[in-house]
Amino acid sequence: MKQLKGACIIGQSGGPTSVINASAYGAIKTALESNVITHVYAACNGIKGVLEDCLIDMNQEDPAELAYMKYTPSSALGSCRYKLKDPDEDDIDFRRILDIFIKYNVRYFFYNGGNDSMDTCNKISKFMLKNNYPCKVMGIPKTIDNDLIGTDHCPGFGSAAKYIATSVMEVYQDARVYDTGMVAIIEAMGRNAGWLTASAALASYKGTGPDLIYLPEVPFDMNNFLNDVQEVYDKNSKCIVVVSEGIRDKNGRYISEYGSDMSQSKDSFGHAQLGGLAAYLADEAKKKTGAKVRGIELSLLQRCAAHCASQTDIDESFSAGKAAVENAIAGVTDKMVGFERSYMDGKYVCNIKLFDLNIVANTEKKVPREWINEAGNGLNSQFIDYALPLIQGKTQLSYEDGLPRFVRLKKIKV
Amino acid sequence: MKQLKGACIIGQSGGPTSVINASAYGAIKTALESNVITHVYAACNGIKGVLEDCLIDMNQEDPAELAYMKYTPSSALGSCRYKLKDPDEDDIDFRRILDIFIKYNVRYFFYNGGNDSMDTCNKISKFMLKNNYPCKVMGIPKTIDNDLIGTDHCPGFGSAAKYIATSVMEVYQDARVYDTGMVAIIEAMGRNAGWLTASAALASYKGTGPDLIYLPEVPFDMNNFLNDVQEVYDKNSKCIVVVSEGIRDKNGRYISEYGSDMSQSKDSFGHAQLGGLAAYLADEAKKKTGAKVRGIELSLLQRCAAHCASQTDIDESFSAGKAAVENAIAGVTDKMVGFERSYMDGKYVCNIKLFDLNIVANTEKKVPREWINEAGNGLNSQFIDYALPLIQGKTQLSYEDGLPRFVRLKKIKV
Repeated sequence: MKQLKGACIIGQSGGPTSVINASAYGAIKTALESNVITHVYAACNGIKGVLEDCLIDMNQEDPAELAYMKYTPSSALGSCRYKLKDPDEDDIDFRRILDIFIKYNVRYFFYNGGNDSMDTCNKISKFMLKNNYPCKVMGIPKTIDNDLIGTDHCPGFGSAAKYIATSVMEVYQDARVYDTGMVAIIEAMGRNAGWLTASAALASYKGTGPDLIYLPEVPFDMNNFLNDVQEVYDKNSKCIVVVSEGIRDKNGRYISEYGSDMSQSKDSFGHAQLGGLAAYLADEAKKKTGAKVRGIELSLLQRCAAHCASQTDIDESFSAGKAAVENAIAGVTDKMVGFERSYMDGKYVCNIKLFDLNIVANTEKKVPREWINEAGNGLNSQFIDYALPLIQGKTQLSYEDGLPRFVRLKKIKV
Repeated sequence: MKQLKGACIIGQSGGPTSVINASAYGAIKTALESNVITHVYAACNGIKGVLEDCLIDMNQEDPAELAYMKYTPSSALGSCRYKLKDPDEDDIDFRRILDIFIKYNVRYFFYNGGNDSMDTCNKISKFMLKNNYPCKVMGIPKTIDNDLIGTDHCPGFGSAAKYIATSVMEVYQDARVYDTGMVAIIEAMGRNAGWLTASAALASYKGTGPDLIYLPEVPFDMNNFLNDVQEVYDKNSKCIVVVSEGIRDKNGRYISEYGSDMSQSKDSFGHAQLGGLAAYLADEAKKKTGAKVRGIELSLLQRCAAHCASQTDIDESFSAGKAAVENAIAGVTDKMVGFERSYMDGKYVCNIKLFDLNIVANTEKKVPREWINEAGNGLNSQFIDYALPLIQGKTQLSYEDGLPRFVRLKKIKV
């Protein structure tokens, strides 16, 4: 088969993770080393960079410096939250993308993001095909939310899970120091899927974790919650709770809205912006139990804590980026690189598997109800078995003067 | 000199740190290995455990398991916030303590805590002396606040500083991913002394830190703050601010009270309980700049993040506990173990130095005004030179199943 010669563009999109750059680095390094890909460009701030003809020349970066990308959190190339229109209704953006691809002879497009990014990827792929422009388009997943369909898990989840479980174990130690009562409510990210919040159960598996965990997969009932807290508190005089930002009542109303009469602000995808839930629930728990309470929001820390990343996640993320380029060069297009799990001699093995972009885009994978306990306030061993392999290994992040050494790109614009 | 033979009690008090157990372990290990100290008891929840005759038999703990204390955050022995009365006015507690000391032939008392604990230590020491009960009393400092007088720095500060600087560097990466504007307000602990908040400047020294830092040492002016934020935001379209929970206006009113009409709750030492400042300032910054804002409270995480502790801090903390026991055995009493810094061939060296407890107790050391820039919104190189050696070295914390392995004490009550 004749290989397609030409340049590539790699872009990053959506909310960053601790390891999204490990994937980008996997793709960039593989592309730079390929003799089929003639030039490696990075899009400034994802697809917006393509639309605005703002490309970074990755061939001019120092290879040794580039290697730091593997351990640098957040989107080093810049990200965006830009939703492409349906090309059948409005193809202006797509024609612009095609123009840019022609201008730079771009024959490979790699997009590193979550659900929305896979949608972008899929639309570009279809448009190029329709316009007879030979181009290989591959999606490289990332999302701490772990909510992409098909793939066993998503690059980024393992590191966020490790950070959350570790932090909750530490808060557990802290919450127990006084002989007075204490209720701590910890809020993790996760709008519709509770994977991140569930990862706190890994701390409980180690014996020093939360007493109660509430995911968006189960309708949240305030009375049940307060009774659960009271029961644990009466027994132990301590209660540690982890809740997902996205918990909703049986009518679908976000619990985070209960405490606030502010009109909900929404992001450009129409997703409600959440926050302040931990403080609100802590307040309710205080009223109920009379205990000293503490609301803790893990906030941005959980998606950028590279210092606590899982080396398994880092290595898998890198391999996803690498596989995207290798497969594209081999002629594959319109696919997302994902993972399939197997066990060899009882040991977890992660294999690359390709998924159709149109299946992945805009669908969310949730925590199976059967992995959640009957009362809906904890996880069972099926979740632990699933998540534990993903958090193994300490990051090999370099330190300089006692602090992380993150990548310093020249970012020379084309 | 005849050495005093008898048992020892070690207690922990006040808010925990990532490394307070490293100090306790230094003391316990040294005491267990001594042939002068006949038995090693730990007080359950500090001085309250002594008063309630609740002692843990440390001789029954497995030495190999005890070694995990060095890397376990928070007070493994339990802590309290109990203020002893002035013995001249009410000596009930002191007579009770003496009774317990006699009951167990306690000749050594080691108390591991902050300012208030040094006060406790000092009062017990004086009371024992007055009652002709031979007993060596030593204070082993700990406080993430770094506000103990005399000592160059406090065990616990280096680790919290490393966590804060690291987390701020990571948030810096995260806040820069979109090409849209962003203001992040990060709140660190520190009621009266700004050391912890100042440690965020270490991230700026690495080039990826906060733009603005506000300490309680400088009266906070809301207009100046908002103008500072606007100026940075106009220039960079990003602005990262770190503020101390304890910032006050020129009239001494906490800024955290501005946004809340709740009556201030106070802890048992009469200190106001602070919180919610980041969210309040983020809201004000949003009104001023129109930017997307994010308020992040580092909360308990900054004092228990053992996974990000400084090995220098861990080793120094251990040596402080060890020195307390060694000095007490040598006949020293009524002292706090502290640190003195020197430089050998330009390299930082930390030496043990003893300080009078009555000087240390109830006095707070603040960040020198000349280490803060003239505008009062940043630190200068004097602070960096001071703090940088304290955050060196990655913790040698053990992991098990990808998560920290913390100590599991039997805690057998006497």
